[in-house]
Amino acid sequence: MKILKIIEQPVRLQGNISNALVNFSSHTVSVVAVITDQLKNGVPLVGLAFNSIGRYAQSGIIHSRMIPRLMNASPDSLLDDSGKLLSPEKILNCILQNEKPGGHGDRAQAASAIELAIWDLNAKLNDEPVSALIARHYQRTRYSNRVSVYAAGGYYYDGENELGLTQEIAQYRAKGFTRFKMKIGGASLAVDMKRIEAALKVAGAGSHLAVDANGRFDLKQAIDYAQAMKNYGLLWFEEAGDPLDFELNSMLSEHYAGALATGENLFSRQDVKNLALFAGMRRGLDIFQMDPGLSYGITEYARMIHQLELQGYSREQVYPHSGQLIGQHVVAGLGLGGCEVYPNIFQPMGGFTDEALIEDGIVKVSDAPGFGFERKSNLMNEFVKLLASA
Amino acid sequence: MKILKIIEQPVRLQGNISNALVNFSSHTVSVVAVITDQLKNGVPLVGLAFNSIGRYAQSGIIHSRMIPRLMNASPDSLLDDSGKLLSPEKILNCILQNEKPGGHGDRAQAASAIELAIWDLNAKLNDEPVSALIARHYQRTRYSNRVSVYAAGGYYYDGENELGLTQEIAQYRAKGFTRFKMKIGGASLAVDMKRIEAALKVAGAGSHLAVDANGRFDLKQAIDYAQAMKNYGLLWFEEAGDPLDFELNSMLSEHYAGALATGENLFSRQDVKNLALFAGMRRGLDIFQMDPGLSYGITEYARMIHQLELQGYSREQVYPHSGQLIGQHVVAGLGLGGCEVYPNIFQPMGGFTDEALIEDGIVKVSDAPGFGFERKSNLMNEFVKLLASA
Repeated sequence: MKILKIIEQPVRLQGNISNALVNFSSHTVSVVAVITDQLKNGVPLVGLAFNSIGRYAQSGIIHSRMIPRLMNASPDSLLDDSGKLLSPEKILNCILQNEKPGGHGDRAQAASAIELAIWDLNAKLNDEPVSALIARHYQRTRYSNRVSVYAAGGYYYDGENELGLTQEIAQYRAKGFTRFKMKIGGASLAVDMKRIEAALKVAGAGSHLAVDANGRFDLKQAIDYAQAMKNYGLLWFEEAGDPLDFELNSMLSEHYAGALATGENLFSRQDVKNLALFAGMRRGLDIFQMDPGLSYGITEYARMIHQLELQGYSREQVYPHSGQLIGQHVVAGLGLGGCEVYPNIFQPMGGFTDEALIEDGIVKVSDAPGFGFERKSNLMNEFVKLLASA
Repeated sequence: MKILKIIEQPVRLQGNISNALVNFSSHTVSVVAVITDQLKNGVPLVGLAFNSIGRYAQSGIIHSRMIPRLMNASPDSLLDDSGKLLSPEKILNCILQNEKPGGHGDRAQAASAIELAIWDLNAKLNDEPVSALIARHYQRTRYSNRVSVYAAGGYYYDGENELGLTQEIAQYRAKGFTRFKMKIGGASLAVDMKRIEAALKVAGAGSHLAVDANGRFDLKQAIDYAQAMKNYGLLWFEEAGDPLDFELNSMLSEHYAGALATGENLFSRQDVKNLALFAGMRRGLDIFQMDPGLSYGITEYARMIHQLELQGYSREQVYPHSGQLIGQHVVAGLGLGGCEVYPNIFQPMGGFTDEALIEDGIVKVSDAPGFGFERKSNLMNEFVKLLASA
């Protein structure tokens, strides 16, 4: 098997959404296609993927550094032991040639888009969903295609009020979600508590509602919110402070008995090891949210999970950030706790396949070969445009 | 004052150099010019800079994310309180709009190139070297234009042997350097000890020779090297393990009484805070090597220094990675310990101005306005090509 060509384009996310720190109206994502000499139904087999949401398209790094390295490699050097599939580990090593250690930022997102496309390609070669391929690749003894999901939203839309928030959560409930996440930190503490109390009426109980500060708070603000929220029994309190402020998270954990969640802005095994060592994360309680679409792909993600288990944490404490199709495959394949979904927003990336049904907070992973992007029409439109550019 | 245009191009580094992990023959650097409506001697005033060595040009991030943000900003919103200079802090805030926290990698290098060009521009407006502008901006009470420097080299050139290494160090001595740094970890421990012992004969004493493993070792290898080197009395032992492996550095510090050095692959104040909190770095002994050309520029660099002082470290423990003209201005302006120089390599970026003299390990900062790139002819050739593309 030989890679003939790799193409990439940025796609702009739809919608004018803000969290506590970031306006997403200018955000982009890289869509990637890996075209090979393998035929499927008479046409060249193509692996598709994108990097996850929130850290921009990575066209520069992909085109100037990563694609040349892959195209310069001997095709056989990229194959797995069977000789029939591409090796995700060898692909990742190749696209990171002559990169210095540390500094896990944009290049981690660039690498993700390519590495994930290899999984899509391999699963299509095997005629199976990526989730099943992941489970076999990592020798999982248990595998279920049923994934626990929660609906992420509750952003600060322009002019949103408590009614808007409760209507949004009611919509998610009507779609079959039972757990929800809303933003905090974009208003005063008093306003945010009113929003939480309004949301709780629709969510039904604190254990069905998580809150996300997107790293906005200093320690005092984080503790103030923790104390104000302590009787709500929330599902979790997410990214109180800067994602790398392990000292803050550790101190906060001494002031909050409920679950804390963080990790979506850590992009390497080593960063996750530091989080687990220094941030006061509690075994069996706190939630890890790293995203395989931001963190060099599934290869490094599996290393992160292994690292957490070495340090005494359970993979059921892992709920990847992402909100899109790729996440559900990784959760099912690696047996993680559950998965974020963006049912309405961050289109055309957010959400699952067109026919996906959420029942009682559970979604079945698409059984289409690969990630199943072909069953999400608005996303597939972008891949069709990408392939037309080849 | 108004920014009219910002231009950027990648420049390939010369030479076929490897350290323990990385071959630099494909490495690039971004050169940037900020063109304003201010005239100097009848021509538009231009701020010049580049991001530092080792983490690639950042054309994609600069052109797709940062330049549009700056050009969309109201010109007045970017001025300092005097209204006469651009504010580096406001420029940095602007080019990081709608960027999520954490993930301090390639975008930190992209931002550096632009932020540093603002300092060059401001210093040229003031007709002074950047070092003097830095000292005033940060209200330093002491300022000297004499900077302690050491010669970095000792790479694993193809076919290099002990003779090659000692000849290289002898060349640096003849140029006026008194302290030197060589690579380790690219050969066996026994071979590296022979190389160190050969180098020591030319360097004169262990206190004149540092060794750099470029993050290659695991804990056992690091401790093995530490024990093998303990009687050499070396200047420092640099980047033994992964730059983010704070646990390894902390454990190593318990096995090595000499100075450890690290930090060139940390790119934010928060990462440096974690290094200082968790990596066992010793007050008054160990060396911090963050590089303003890789870390969002001088604005974030000054925050790193402030953070270290808050945690009880001295700014004299800071020796920035960089090996080029920008570093000496930052060391003189902020009163840091000293500065790396690449006398021969990483051209056209490495080293100082054409007329710079090293005397007894000290260089005087160029008194040319700005960083003084105009006095380094091979580097200026690249800026001329860049400006010709405008």
